Amino acid sequence: MHRPRVLIVGAGFGGLACSRSLAESPVDVLLIDRNNYHLFTPLLYQVASSLLNPSDIVFPVRQVFRRVTNIEFVYGEVTGVDLAGRTVQLTDGRLLIYDFLVLATGSQTNFYGLDSVKQVAFGLKDLSEALELRNHVLRCFETAAAAPDDESRRRWLTFVIVGGGPTGVEYAGALSELVYLELRRDFPTLDMGKVRIVLVEGEDRVLPTFAEELGLDTSHRLRKRYGIEVRVGERVEGAAPGSVRLTGGGIIEAETLVWAAGVQPSDLAGRVQTSRSGSGRLCVDASLRLPDQDRVFAIGDVAAASHEGSEAPMLSAPAIQGGRTVAQSIRRQLQGKAPVPFVYRDKGIMATIGRNNAVAQVGRLRLKGFLGWVAWLAVHLYFILGVRNRIAVLAGWAWNYLLRDRPIRLIARARSRGTADS
Amino acid sequence: MHRPRVLIVGAGFGGLACSRSLAESPVDVLLIDRNNYHLFTPLLYQVASSLLNPSDIVFPVRQVFRRVTNIEFVYGEVTGVDLAGRTVQLTDGRLLIYDFLVLATGSQTNFYGLDSVKQVAFGLKDLSEALELRNHVLRCFETAAAAPDDESRRRWLTFVIVGGGPTGVEYAGALSELVYLELRRDFPTLDMGKVRIVLVEGEDRVLPTFAEELGLDTSHRLRKRYGIEVRVGERVEGAAPGSVRLTGGGIIEAETLVWAAGVQPSDLAGRVQTSRSGSGRLCVDASLRLPDQDRVFAIGDVAAASHEGSEAPMLSAPAIQGGRTVAQSIRRQLQGKAPVPFVYRDKGIMATIGRNNAVAQVGRLRLKGFLGWVAWLAVHLYFILGVRNRIAVLAGWAWNYLLRDRPIRLIARARSRGTADS
Repeated sequence: MHRPRVLIVGAGFGGLACSRSLAESPVDVLLIDRNNYHLFTPLLYQVASSLLNPSDIVFPVRQVFRRVTNIEFVYGEVTGVDLAGRTVQLTDGRLLIYDFLVLATGSQTNFYGLDSVKQVAFGLKDLSEALELRNHVLRCFETAAAAPDDESRRRWLTFVIVGGGPTGVEYAGALSELVYLELRRDFPTLDMGKVRIVLVEGEDRVLPTFAEELGLDTSHRLRKRYGIEVRVGERVEGAAPGSVRLTGGGIIEAETLVWAAGVQPSDLAGRVQTSRSGSGRLCVDASLRLPDQDRVFAIGDVAAASHEGSEAPMLSAPAIQGGRTVAQSIRRQLQGKAPVPFVYRDKGIMATIGRNNAVAQVGRLRLKGFLGWVAWLAVHLYFILGVRNRIAVLAGWAWNYLLRDRPIRLIARARSRGTADS
Repeated sequence: MHRPRVLIVGAGFGGLACSRSLAESPVDVLLIDRNNYHLFTPLLYQVASSLLNPSDIVFPVRQVFRRVTNIEFVYGEVTGVDLAGRTVQLTDGRLLIYDFLVLATGSQTNFYGLDSVKQVAFGLKDLSEALELRNHVLRCFETAAAAPDDESRRRWLTFVIVGGGPTGVEYAGALSELVYLELRRDFPTLDMGKVRIVLVEGEDRVLPTFAEELGLDTSHRLRKRYGIEVRVGERVEGAAPGSVRLTGGGIIEAETLVWAAGVQPSDLAGRVQTSRSGSGRLCVDASLRLPDQDRVFAIGDVAAASHEGSEAPMLSAPAIQGGRTVAQSIRRQLQGKAPVPFVYRDKGIMATIGRNNAVAQVGRLRLKGFLGWVAWLAVHLYFILGVRNRIAVLAGWAWNYLLRDRPIRLIARARSRGTADS
């Protein structure tokens, strides 16, 4: 008997949730990803700041579905989708035929067309970017320690982080702890008073998507407790090796520019013959289907799902909920029923600055400081995949909390052969 | 007051032991390494086989000497030594002057001039090689799972390991466990009966430096319990992508060639204006000094220290002992006394095949099987640096022992930018 084949592109939060919901349904699922792991992106900044191992926040996709007979993993990168021919093309030339297609390819760093920034900035959106940033920051301190003059030393010790959303705030706080609690001990001859961490945000306060009091509280803590220079209402408009240019002409001399200013839908979105919203996300109907396609869905960051008159935010929650909704719709359509509409239920947002410091906002509830931090820890531990990862992350946090140690301080070197590490 | 400056090149077993022995001595020590960490090489094959994290077997050099005031770390790579000018040159152009110099740059993979092998083989001597091998082996199984025909699938599932010394034996055993205990569950559609692990050793038995009974016992276990094809008395004389050529003309079709057939002194040894032994190691006198140099020492793999009419083996023990001896000699020479001679005390050798299986040889004592394995575990846990690493390694081993899980199964991708990961 031929079972309908569901192709799911992307094993992020959305694709994984959709696959799981289709376990033991009367379909054959092929889940495709260019990485062999699911990445828990909310903790990426902790890999970038020498606290966690890469393996603590990734989970092999094949292991998720070991006991599931109707889901198969395909390691590969999708380059194109032929909606008329109902096929998906992989970089290695393979063509995969589908009955149902779910596009869940997520998003990538958005440089907003600033090519000079793209040349020198570090993103913080996938594992290789996080590792590259970790290696770079540690190398900055080594270079500063060996610098022949104060001017270049200052440049190696200046870190500009662009984007005051959760990623920028969390990384800035983690970098501050790495420097002032840890590297201070590694580099006794370096004057840590020369370190400058600058957080640049275009809106008039950090965490602009949070309630005003939480954003202001966060600004205050970043400045007073973390020694971070918070610059709101300013934007970066260009960069060159060793310098960052702000709107208004200001220049910050820095060898490190971290770009956490925004994301855009993954490249694949631009290669599908369909309509896109102003943000580049794929237009979808109320059931997350592409226009005029009753068996092609898009979920998560790549889809312009409507929510309260606008688009659902690019967060894990709408991706997970979308994946579940689409799984339900596919099952219903197989029975000749109509798909279900997608309704995003906002579960709240949170961001941590560091030890004992986080903000959380769930409905009308607002938490900050220690309480917010405990909530943040609990939620992240709960959502991370796999017992081992949960133990490893908890152990890493406990070690860091008690000893102020960020132990993953290795500078990994590229092989001459030019292939990957990690 | 000018304190004599001791330059130590290399933070491996020898360089680290020498530095530690000079802590609080009346000298200023500059310890130079191109990596910012000390690597515990004996467990490298466990990183290559998805069992341990890189951070579990590396330790930041700066952390070792945090509480030591007379030792400073220099992150850099030495390109040349000027014995007449008493300076050492770094790749970034820095020139460092020394009063005493200790060369402890260790060794690297030796391809014995086989260029075709060097092109395609994976080494197992430094961290980037181990990670590259891990990524490659996992990718082999993904590629095999997607292979269009049996012939290519077989090639992706054939692994040739050259060198039946401890590194080759240990990696072969670990690879067998990775495949038959772990990947078997990840790839239910792949016939693991098609996997072929071949261990090639030029001598007439594996572990030729061990007592004959231990070598034969190891061969037997590798074949019967680990499903490994042990081929002794054969050598690899060439390779091309997808195939390995043996002496005698035999060809093994394989996409993976792991080269654990030997090591040679690091490149720097060839750039010092002094004499070398037949193995390329630096000639040294009884106190490990270069000929006609009373303040320049060489220790460990890079030095041809004499031992029982031959050269001391390239192991961690002679490097550590050499480092301590040289530290003592430097202190004595500062007091106008003669340096002490180096006497290598053989502490024994050991190698593990896998779960409950190892051989150890200490003097006349010979251990194998479970007892050998317990001894192996204890010795390695004892010698690894740092409390956190000890906990992490022990936890990793316990997890693996109880669940047969090798959790670090991520294929790390290189960044387009081409820089390092990990």
